[in-house]
Amino acid sequence: MKYGFSERVKFMKSSAVRDILKVINQGNIISFAGGLPEESLFPVKAVDAAFHKAVTTNNKALQYGETEGVAALRAALAERMRKKGLIRDPDNILITSGSQQAIDLFSRVMFNKGDIILTENPTYLAALQVFESYETRVVAVDSDDDGMVIADLEEKITRLKPKCIYVVPTYSNPTGKVWSLDRREKLLELANKYHVVIFEDDPYGELQFDKEAAPPSIASLDENGLVLYTSTFSKTVVPAMRIGWIVGPHQIIRIMAQAKQATDLHTNSISQHALVHLLRDFDIDEHIQTIRDTYYERMQVMKELLDTVNLEGLEYIEPKGGMFFWVTLPEEINATKLLDEAVKAGVAYVPGAPFYVSDAEQNTMRLNFTNSSPALIREGMEKLVKVLEKSRLQV
Amino acid sequence: MKYGFSERVKFMKSSAVRDILKVINQGNIISFAGGLPEESLFPVKAVDAAFHKAVTTNNKALQYGETEGVAALRAALAERMRKKGLIRDPDNILITSGSQQAIDLFSRVMFNKGDIILTENPTYLAALQVFESYETRVVAVDSDDDGMVIADLEEKITRLKPKCIYVVPTYSNPTGKVWSLDRREKLLELANKYHVVIFEDDPYGELQFDKEAAPPSIASLDENGLVLYTSTFSKTVVPAMRIGWIVGPHQIIRIMAQAKQATDLHTNSISQHALVHLLRDFDIDEHIQTIRDTYYERMQVMKELLDTVNLEGLEYIEPKGGMFFWVTLPEEINATKLLDEAVKAGVAYVPGAPFYVSDAEQNTMRLNFTNSSPALIREGMEKLVKVLEKSRLQV
Repeated sequence: MKYGFSERVKFMKSSAVRDILKVINQGNIISFAGGLPEESLFPVKAVDAAFHKAVTTNNKALQYGETEGVAALRAALAERMRKKGLIRDPDNILITSGSQQAIDLFSRVMFNKGDIILTENPTYLAALQVFESYETRVVAVDSDDDGMVIADLEEKITRLKPKCIYVVPTYSNPTGKVWSLDRREKLLELANKYHVVIFEDDPYGELQFDKEAAPPSIASLDENGLVLYTSTFSKTVVPAMRIGWIVGPHQIIRIMAQAKQATDLHTNSISQHALVHLLRDFDIDEHIQTIRDTYYERMQVMKELLDTVNLEGLEYIEPKGGMFFWVTLPEEINATKLLDEAVKAGVAYVPGAPFYVSDAEQNTMRLNFTNSSPALIREGMEKLVKVLEKSRLQV
Repeated sequence: MKYGFSERVKFMKSSAVRDILKVINQGNIISFAGGLPEESLFPVKAVDAAFHKAVTTNNKALQYGETEGVAALRAALAERMRKKGLIRDPDNILITSGSQQAIDLFSRVMFNKGDIILTENPTYLAALQVFESYETRVVAVDSDDDGMVIADLEEKITRLKPKCIYVVPTYSNPTGKVWSLDRREKLLELANKYHVVIFEDDPYGELQFDKEAAPPSIASLDENGLVLYTSTFSKTVVPAMRIGWIVGPHQIIRIMAQAKQATDLHTNSISQHALVHLLRDFDIDEHIQTIRDTYYERMQVMKELLDTVNLEGLEYIEPKGGMFFWVTLPEEINATKLLDEAVKAGVAYVPGAPFYVSDAEQNTMRLNFTNSSPALIREGMEKLVKVLEKSRLQV
């Protein structure tokens, strides 16, 4: 039997990173390639107690639930966000199956074929996959260490009339960058001036290393219903729960809920109720501080080893939070080709090229430091340093 | 701010049933309107033990997981289906966030705007919602008590060249009908002859009342990769887990997994691992027998009261399984209009009209018997009988 698929299948890509991970996971390789949180930090006791309460407190929690999400969880999230200056009603929140689903549902209700979305370059790969599956056109805006370059942004807004600007402004994947307050404000000004919606993807905002917090979320600065903001419990509790949320103008959230109803009725509500109990009974902020301390230490170990590389032209951004180093190699080194050598030496990373919308810089790589112990980071980085230094000789 | 939504939003409908339920849930009303399983039957102890094991056995279970689903769950499902004559490899299975997501992902990878889908009439409302959101055209095939009328089906296949035939052949929602073996075989023959894919939606197949089982699933008769089959744990364990699965040709399952990756990465894996433990440690078949016995008793109580209605022209189908009575009133009675009277009298149902693809019969209603105790069914049906008998006088 030959099957006739839909046209949109042509625009669906498998994740290049996932394909690389499959190869890497087969061998005995120290991997800096994935984007996984550290498993030993999972608050197993608290999660166990929370699920026990969720399952045994009230049979209603095991029944079909509301598409918008469990009311008590939305109230708890509104309260948590309020403390961070993002003041919205529970009615402005939709609970999703991870923040990935927030990106998908938003795209579903907003984008027509050919619509233009502006993004940073490089940016979060799996968002690009979603956007492309809706046959949109993604256009990169020039960025520097402080965020999008405003002049280029305004030029592209006026010329291309985008439907949306997608940003990961805080400890971004893949670059680890943080947008300055000034750029956040200027982005909002332009969005307001030209009536463009901003999608702020913030999975890493809680993973802050500096004593000094990152600037406030763009959503918290928004007074005109311009910003959709999404985050997740995948990095602060456990990924397997698949609980994210999106907050935004009620008009958009309501339509997204309607789309979600047809998509999967509602998000797993045992996990939602478990989170309600967890947020009540467990000091999640103390737990997040433990995660921050652990990741900061690992980042430092990786930095120390990166600093030993004897390779002129190698640069990296020291992350102020999040999960990744973004490394730029000398221009003549192709990080995709070099991966073979690295894997042979027993260490893996993700080449930077797939994260680019256009003009991919082949001499970039993303290194994850959250999912390996300091000892393993040291061992893996020693291997990687050798591979990098050898690469210089081969050029 | 005025937001520009996508074209497809125009084709998204809120569920008429959900809108009715919102009104009903506000008052002190005995409701036969929903489609909920009985909460007091939820196997709370077993679910609690299963989640405890899922959370505490291995931290890997709390990490990001595979898009296709937890391997042990797919293996357990393959084994369960094998016992029912549906012999497929775990690789032919995709775990979904309830079987609703299976319908959505299938639609996403198969349907282009204008594609034709043949269905029974009436049929499952939320499937129609999904199909319409992809701008397809749904066309009803004539049905009788044994399933689709084969002559009409063949005429419509040859004339309309449909992409898919969607059926709920076992204890269907809304009619409670069961397709005969002969019709199942003839449907397959036609699908094979004309190369049309069949989507078999089977959420209720386990809820059998007769000693005699329903005929085998259409998928189990398929030797040519024609059938996609979906089912769920929502009716046999608990709905809040949102775990369904779809089994079919590997070529389609693989593309659906790719679509799922962009949609939500993977299904909640704590619930998936919990189900693996539950299927090992708990006698789910004994539990399903308890559900069957309870629902059978409730169905009998409702039938007994239906038989007391003094209203010429009232007909119903006695369900051999599932969750619903489908009642046809005398032609001159409009069940949508009558609902107001019923709600005033303290009882609710769902009018049948929204379940029709076309030629809606306004004199039909769906009654759920699974979510009310026998005493409440008696009380509610006594109210409904009065409303029905009074309706005769008003015509």
